[in-house]
Amino acid sequence: MKTKSFSEMQCSIARTLDHVGYWWSLLIIRDAMMGARRFKHFQENLGIAKNTLTSRLNDLIEGGIIKKVPADDGSAYDEYRLTDRGRDLSPVIIALAQWGDKWVAHEEGPSTVITDKETGERLSRVWPRREAGDLVELHEIGMRRANGAPPKVWHQEKED
Amino acid sequence: MKTKSFSEMQCSIARTLDHVGYWWSLLIIRDAMMGARRFKHFQENLGIAKNTLTSRLNDLIEGGIIKKVPADDGSAYDEYRLTDRGRDLSPVIIALAQWGDKWVAHEEGPSTVITDKETGERLSRVWPRREAGDLVELHEIGMRRANGAPPKVWHQEKED
Repeated sequence: MKTKSFSEMQCSIARTLDHVGYWWSLLIIRDAMMGARRFKHFQENLGIAKNTLTSRLNDLIEGGIIKKVPADDGSAYDEYRLTDRGRDLSPVIIALAQWGDKWVAHEEGPSTVITDKETGERLSRVWPRREAGDLVELHEIGMRRANGAPPKVWHQEKED
Repeated sequence: MKTKSFSEMQCSIARTLDHVGYWWSLLIIRDAMMGARRFKHFQENLGIAKNTLTSRLNDLIEGGIIKKVPADDGSAYDEYRLTDRGRDLSPVIIALAQWGDKWVAHEEGPSTVITDKETGERLSRVWPRREAGDLVELHEIGMRRANGAPPKVWHQEKED
């Protein structure tokens, strides 16, 4: 199914989703963050059709989020690795995980623990903060558009 | 198109995407955060087919992310408002915006400014931090599964 591309939109949220907004894309990135490197890792873990996985990996490669490199153990397999740009999606993945842990956790309990790799200490919530470091309440957050980007901000306008 | 549901998966990332992972869903949530309330607000801003918008809004209502309420100005229109659960997706939306601003910004420049509504001060990046408040580098972040949740963590295992 051809969906409308968001790539022509000015909004950075839309432009990001044009890269990672397909069904499966963010789960592929999640698996890569957890150490999946080979086609079969993704395929077995996700239970996804091979042609779908190939399409999604190719999109992510084209978007510069994943790169295909020769295996470092000298085997014949190619490996799929996150680029710097791909790893930089960590806050998105972690924010999705913490929302899910809070609101739609599985009956077995929350599934994801985000830690300092060295100490094993749990990290705090990924959450908006002021420059001084204190957490901001959701109702205190303003989002405004810069450089002429849509969307309109409706509540600042008189309703017609 | 019927896609495989992620709702049976234990992973909180997958379970979240089962609610917000459809093409358009996160842009609808973005618009709601920026003040869109009426069907026509979303429809005009997104340039989306009415039947698609109706489906996506119904999914979000069913998922408890948006609620449909009578307009508070006494007019005959229904309004679509984020629930607490929906507003709690702000860190996801902001993390998507900051990735886009950094990596795929439009030629007109970054589109989104996240502020303290009261002071207008820009907020700092939404980023993983230690409990003490200091930022964590991406290579220092560990993600491990809890309560038996998949996926496997491949790099901790011997490759076969």
